[in-house]
Amino acid sequence: MSHPVSPLAPATLAELPPIEGVRIATAEAGIKYKNRTDLMMMVFDAPTAVAGVLTRSRCPSAPVDFCRANLAGGSARALVVNSGNANAFTGRRGRESTAMTAEAAAKAVGCSPSEVFLASTGVIGEPLDAGRFTHLLQSLADTGEADRWREAAQAIMTTDTYPKVATRSAALGDGTVTINGIAKGAGMIAPDMATMLSFLATDAPIAAPVLQALLKAAVEPSFNSVTVDSDTSTSDTLLFFATGAAAARGCPEITDAADPRLGALRSALGELLLDLARQVARDGEGVRKEIQVTVEGAVSDLSAKRIALSIANSPLVKTAVAGEDANWGRVVMAVGKAGEEADRDRLAIHFGDVRVAVDGERDPAYSEAAASAVMRRAEILIRVDLGLGTGRWTVYGCDLTKDYVAINGDYRS
Amino acid sequence: MSHPVSPLAPATLAELPPIEGVRIATAEAGIKYKNRTDLMMMVFDAPTAVAGVLTRSRCPSAPVDFCRANLAGGSARALVVNSGNANAFTGRRGRESTAMTAEAAAKAVGCSPSEVFLASTGVIGEPLDAGRFTHLLQSLADTGEADRWREAAQAIMTTDTYPKVATRSAALGDGTVTINGIAKGAGMIAPDMATMLSFLATDAPIAAPVLQALLKAAVEPSFNSVTVDSDTSTSDTLLFFATGAAAARGCPEITDAADPRLGALRSALGELLLDLARQVARDGEGVRKEIQVTVEGAVSDLSAKRIALSIANSPLVKTAVAGEDANWGRVVMAVGKAGEEADRDRLAIHFGDVRVAVDGERDPAYSEAAASAVMRRAEILIRVDLGLGTGRWTVYGCDLTKDYVAINGDYRS
Repeated sequence: MSHPVSPLAPATLAELPPIEGVRIATAEAGIKYKNRTDLMMMVFDAPTAVAGVLTRSRCPSAPVDFCRANLAGGSARALVVNSGNANAFTGRRGRESTAMTAEAAAKAVGCSPSEVFLASTGVIGEPLDAGRFTHLLQSLADTGEADRWREAAQAIMTTDTYPKVATRSAALGDGTVTINGIAKGAGMIAPDMATMLSFLATDAPIAAPVLQALLKAAVEPSFNSVTVDSDTSTSDTLLFFATGAAAARGCPEITDAADPRLGALRSALGELLLDLARQVARDGEGVRKEIQVTVEGAVSDLSAKRIALSIANSPLVKTAVAGEDANWGRVVMAVGKAGEEADRDRLAIHFGDVRVAVDGERDPAYSEAAASAVMRRAEILIRVDLGLGTGRWTVYGCDLTKDYVAINGDYRS
Repeated sequence: MSHPVSPLAPATLAELPPIEGVRIATAEAGIKYKNRTDLMMMVFDAPTAVAGVLTRSRCPSAPVDFCRANLAGGSARALVVNSGNANAFTGRRGRESTAMTAEAAAKAVGCSPSEVFLASTGVIGEPLDAGRFTHLLQSLADTGEADRWREAAQAIMTTDTYPKVATRSAALGDGTVTINGIAKGAGMIAPDMATMLSFLATDAPIAAPVLQALLKAAVEPSFNSVTVDSDTSTSDTLLFFATGAAAARGCPEITDAADPRLGALRSALGELLLDLARQVARDGEGVRKEIQVTVEGAVSDLSAKRIALSIANSPLVKTAVAGEDANWGRVVMAVGKAGEEADRDRLAIHFGDVRVAVDGERDPAYSEAAASAVMRRAEILIRVDLGLGTGRWTVYGCDLTKDYVAINGDYRS
């Protein structure tokens, strides 16, 4: 918990403006941590549209099951998130815990439990005693304020070394709307002490099915293109709330995902999610360098994505980056093992702006010095051109260091 | 190259008897290493049946392409293997190098280049100058002896910390036949300085198509169930030669893969391959512990294998084992991310003989002390019962240590 701040942390944290219709409060519930907040409540005073993307794990946590059921209703009045315990693999008691939390939150804000959303992050397999914090929810609901986004990001941290916040604004009709987002990592994602959680809110008046379509599209090139260690959490949860408060300022209500007025908002959402996703990668456990892998010339975008993930997840590529070694042979290996269409003799590989291999061989003009200079940077760009088609994708990852092993090998013992 | 010997190395190396019809010689060609052998030639004085399993990489090395073409003929007279350079991603010059080597070997033993088999292991992307060693092949062919299996295993090592040898005998008809095998690792498999190569020979009189069927079946639960770091080499090569010399002692010639007389040989081959495969896992880079993951109760054997590989490849499971942490939550995560059928609430997980989780929750009788005692062993057995069907598989891997990162991050730079 006391790891040094990632060298890739942002120089300054973004200031998040209030989102009309959203109030936030945090508390020290002492679930596991001492002397820090570990409980966050977001209250939506009016019914608010909600969309979500949840982990594909076949062993999801109890809060993930709970959110999946409630997302069908499309309406939210409260979000409750705790850190310190993931309420995952906790069986019947896990379900009792989510039910108890949802009932207390519903009572505090005056809504149905079906309008409550939940997330938990921290240790897996330990029963979560909701009695530790349900008595605090009435006070949080009553005292929440609009300007507490940074506090919210801090309360949901686990092994994160910095809070992750981002904000964007976008034109919608004749008005302007705002999207705020927070996220936590920090492995991608250790079920102990890490899990990717992210919560977004906007004042835009957007119907839940449209919000879901926007979120689903935006998550592919952002959170679904980030990897720290290829491990998928039982608890990954991304929720997007739209209060609709901007309608009072003349913004149009959007009920059709094909509405052309969504263009700016769609772009802003994509930017914001990529910003948060990269912040997660740049705070990967033990990270020293961010890796951006772009694969182009693939037979399809999906094929490019699979190859890019094969490269970004390869322990040998990741350790080479940690060692500042322009080891393009390992990139060839990772292309080859992806199982996607590739022609060895058409491959070209760049590290940064240095072409190291072309036409299936080391570049005739290859310079170890030039390649090594690129590898000393904090952001390592690996670009592979397969020379087959127009498919293209970029994936964001990080290096694999001895500190990663120390953090994850020394943690519980 | 001067890593300390794996703590999991065998206490004593097996003594390999001669295989009639096989002669072996090694040499110091100075391809990359100094003061050690790096060239190995195996000569089959009579035409010998051959079968092979090669990497599935879409970016295979030049020798892999060469072997794939020659395996169609099913007949071998020579095998030439070098360490220090993988002849992978070397383009046109790579093909020239294999052609030149095959011609020199064919001339040395008096056969066609189509009866020569080749393998190279070591650095990727560097042109392999076959001229460094082709002039040595005549002498190797002339001076080869039958009792040099251990020398053969030593000449093909890269980052291996011990040579990998195994032998078995089996009844065939009224006679007895022998199978010898050698292998090298040591990552699974770094294209720099590692690649899984294995070469087997027997005196059994077995037709090439039968040999291929036997090998293909035996490789699934052995070499195809071993993982060090989930990275697949451009060069993985497993070849099996059958000289047929035992026919002169009365062993029957086998031309049908369904021949019931193959039972003992099939068992012996399976044992030998698993022995070699585990030796590779136990010499994984930076290894301190072997991990055996058994998944049972799956909907099929294939599903069990995929889940077992998901567990054995998970960086978080591997670092937990390195840290002697009975972190079963990470096993749940790895089951969940495999994408295979699983029911969280039926899962049971054992570390060694200690049941840590049952029915989707921590075991009510869970003892941290008992689980921790198991984790201090050199061989960590993880058993997952999915409770769904009868599918079952075992996978062999190793832990992920700071030394792995050091070996692979510090190597070239």
